[in-house]
This record gives sequence, C-alpha cells and structure tokens, in this order.
Amino acid sequence: MLITSLTNDKVKNLVKLQTKKYRDEERKFLVEGDHLVSEAYKTNNLIEIFAVEDVLVTFADIPVTYVTKEVMKKISEQTSSTNIIGVCKYINNKIDENKNIVLLDSIQDPGNLGTIIRSAVAFNFDIVLGDNSVDIYNSKTIRSTEGMIFNVNFIKSNLIDFINNHNDYKYLIADMNNGTDIKNYNKTNKVAIIMGNEGNGISESIRNLDIDYIYIKQSSKCESLNVGVAASILMHELGDINE
Amino acid sequence: MLITSLTNDKVKNLVKLQTKKYRDEERKFLVEGDHLVSEAYKTNNLIEIFAVEDVLVTFADIPVTYVTKEVMKKISEQTSSTNIIGVCKYINNKIDENKNIVLLDSIQDPGNLGTIIRSAVAFNFDIVLGDNSVDIYNSKTIRSTEGMIFNVNFIKSNLIDFINNHNDYKYLIADMNNGTDIKNYNKTNKVAIIMGNEGNGISESIRNLDIDYIYIKQSSKCESLNVGVAASILMHELGDINE
Repeated sequence: MLITSLTNDKVKNLVKLQTKKYRDEERKFLVEGDHLVSEAYKTNNLIEIFAVEDVLVTFADIPVTYVTKEVMKKISEQTSSTNIIGVCKYINNKIDENKNIVLLDSIQDPGNLGTIIRSAVAFNFDIVLGDNSVDIYNSKTIRSTEGMIFNVNFIKSNLIDFINNHNDYKYLIADMNNGTDIKNYNKTNKVAIIMGNEGNGISESIRNLDIDYIYIKQSSKCESLNVGVAASILMHELGDINE
Repeated sequence: MLITSLTNDKVKNLVKLQTKKYRDEERKFLVEGDHLVSEAYKTNNLIEIFAVEDVLVTFADIPVTYVTKEVMKKISEQTSSTNIIGVCKYINNKIDENKNIVLLDSIQDPGNLGTIIRSAVAFNFDIVLGDNSVDIYNSKTIRSTEGMIFNVNFIKSNLIDFINNHNDYKYLIADMNNGTDIKNYNKTNKVAIIMGNEGNGISESIRNLDIDYIYIKQSSKCESLNVGVAASILMHELGDINE
C-alpha cells in the first residue's frame, strides 16, 4: 500500500502523535530512523512501520505502509529527511525495587532527559519522573536516548509521595556545593539521587525533607554542570553494574 | 541610534556573522541573551551591543545600537525572542601547558562540544580541537557552553601533529571497553584525554599510535554514553582542582 495524499486519515493520525495529548490518549509514540526503529523492534515495542517507497523494510511480522517523500516530510518532526518511522506502544510504567534510582524534579529540557535515560541504562539505574518534568515521549527526548528509551525502567510520580511511600532508599540531593563530595561518599545502601530543574534546582518542598546532600567538586570559574552531565557523573560514582 | 531597516548595512553584517567563513574573516562572533552578553562583558570579550529598543542596557563603555523587534528577529538565530545580542572578539588561541587537556577528534555535534567546554572549565581542563571538529563559535555550541566559552582555554590543531610535538602528557584514548577501567586508573602525570567522533570513534591514525586506553564501565544493555557525558566523567575522574 502506498499513501500519496497528505490528507489521508492515517497521515493525519500520525501527525497528531506529535502532541503529548494525543500520545497519552492512544498510548503510542513515534520514532524516526533505522536505529530507533530497530531498537523498538528488538524490544517488542514496534507496532507499525511507515517507510518511503524506495526503502526496503525487513522487520518480520510488522505491518509496513509505504508513503511518498512528501508524506514522510509531513509526518517527520526532523529537518533532515527521514526514511522510516515506527509507531511504538507506550513503555510499561515500572521500576525494579532492587536497583538504584534517579528522581527527576521538573527537568525541562528534552535533550537533558534523553541523556539521563541513556546514562541510567549504562549505569543500571531506574527513573522516577516527577510531576513537572518534560514528556518522556517528546521526539527530542527520544532522539537523545539513542534507543535507550526501550531499555529503561521508569515511573511517573509526585516525588514527595514517592519518598514518603518508599523508605528503603538512601535519598541524596545533588547540590552545587553542599554536603559530601561524591568522591568521598561512602555508599552502604541502594540510593535515590534527586536531580533538580535546570534553572531553579530542587524544589523547596523536597529541600525541606531530612535528606543528605552530595556535590561534584568543580572549579569556582564554572557556575554549574549541565544537569545531564551531573546526573551521569553521580550514577557513574554510585552505580552497581553486576554483569 | 535606532535601526528600523532590515537592509541596514550593520544588520547585514550581523547576519553574515552567522556563517563560519565571515566569522573567521572578522574574528568576531555573536552571543544572544542577558547571561551570555554579561559573561562576554565580564571577561572583556564584548565589543558592541545590539538591543531591542525598550531594553535598558547598562554595560559601561560598550557601544549600544538599538533595533526594532523585527530587526532583532532577523539577526537572532534562535526561535524564541531575543532582546540583546553581543558582538564578541575571538578568544585567544592558547592553552596552559601545566594543565590537563582534552583532545577532540572530529566532534560533530555543537551541543556536545558546548557541553565538553562547560565541563572542561568545571574540571580545569584545556581543550585541543582537532581538524574536523564542529566550529567552536557555532551559535548552538556557544549556547551549550552556558557562558563558559569565555573561560575556556583552547587551541585548534591537527591532533597527530600536536601529539608528536608534545611528549610531556600521558595520552589516553577513551574507548568503549578496551584498556583500564577509569575507576582503577592510577594517574601519575598530567593527562591528555582523546575523545572521538560521535559515530565513528577515534581515527585509525590516532589508534595506530602507541597510546593507552581507558574506559567507563557500563551495562552491556547500553551501546555507548553520549560523548559529552563520557568526556565529563573522565575529566571528573582525572581532574585537578586546586583552589
């Protein structure tokens, strides 16, 4: 089947999946390009494929619809040309209670969230996404994960509720210079690292809880590290990789 | 002075500064927004200011030209509205030979370069930018540095030439899994960490030199870390911050 019309109903529905509201209703999201479609396939998250007419698609059992270049351009959210788009199902909301976790308090930049997801998989952390964070299925977030969106465990939760209901983690607030230098921190329990918003840091309501602070020692010339970098360094320092 | 015309010569010249060719000829580049303009001023790199007519600008001794919102939109490279743009002089090409350094081999993404610059300032590293790397004065690079472009020391050089002419560093190739786990690495000298291209890693010609490898231990589920994250973790592990 080849779709040539920009007003085809399937095309309209794909364009709607660019919005969070429609994604949440359908519990589906889009990924672009060979690498992400292939990762979606390997992890059984791929439902359907849309490809430019001259592209050979070889994922067994997944329905393929061919479209013209013009139609693909309309579906795609990227400026450079995409040849293949996968429709994926939402990932199950769960975390492994034996693992370390990162709590994200109002992370706003999709690239930063994607970077944190990629590093979380690398260092074996699960993720708790706080109420005011950017959407995990945002196309920029997904691109920045480099496919690790399909390998991460995450849940969405109000962070204060989560902390009150889970007392078996050692909670740690990542700060600029308060608390313990991460290089001197002595880990004795599974940890929950709390990372704050890019501009405003950690919410007052979380700061008011009785939680220890850790910091990454850095030059006074630098105001702060990128939050994705800071989270990654802390996960590197505190992670358990037993493979 | 208020510029209202989109075809004003000053406006044309500012738009030309969006291209590397013209930046290199003029040895000037643009920064957008209060924070970056203020960082440029503090470090004596600010030559001239262009601001929207209703903005109050208070940098002593720096000439200000006011423009209409339409003119500002033409000069700006960002989608969101900018109120102030600074014209800055190129930063001196130099490194401090007593410090640790990072060698960047064909880094392509401006955001990654900006992140590495920001972390380099945080962990007290200077930067050697190899031949095929993205332009350091690219507007996306500059935004990602969060103003640290004005605090970093860097030079541009062919990396093989640099390595051949500087034998007092301990060179280390950052690899996926060859060599020494960075957590077990015993540093005895100032280091030069070599980071590779996002897709292709380190060039064959550098790999052929007799250089040690280091890696960041990570889960087999993750193909690789973001190069900005990996560079930052290695600088965090190997940096000397004596303040």
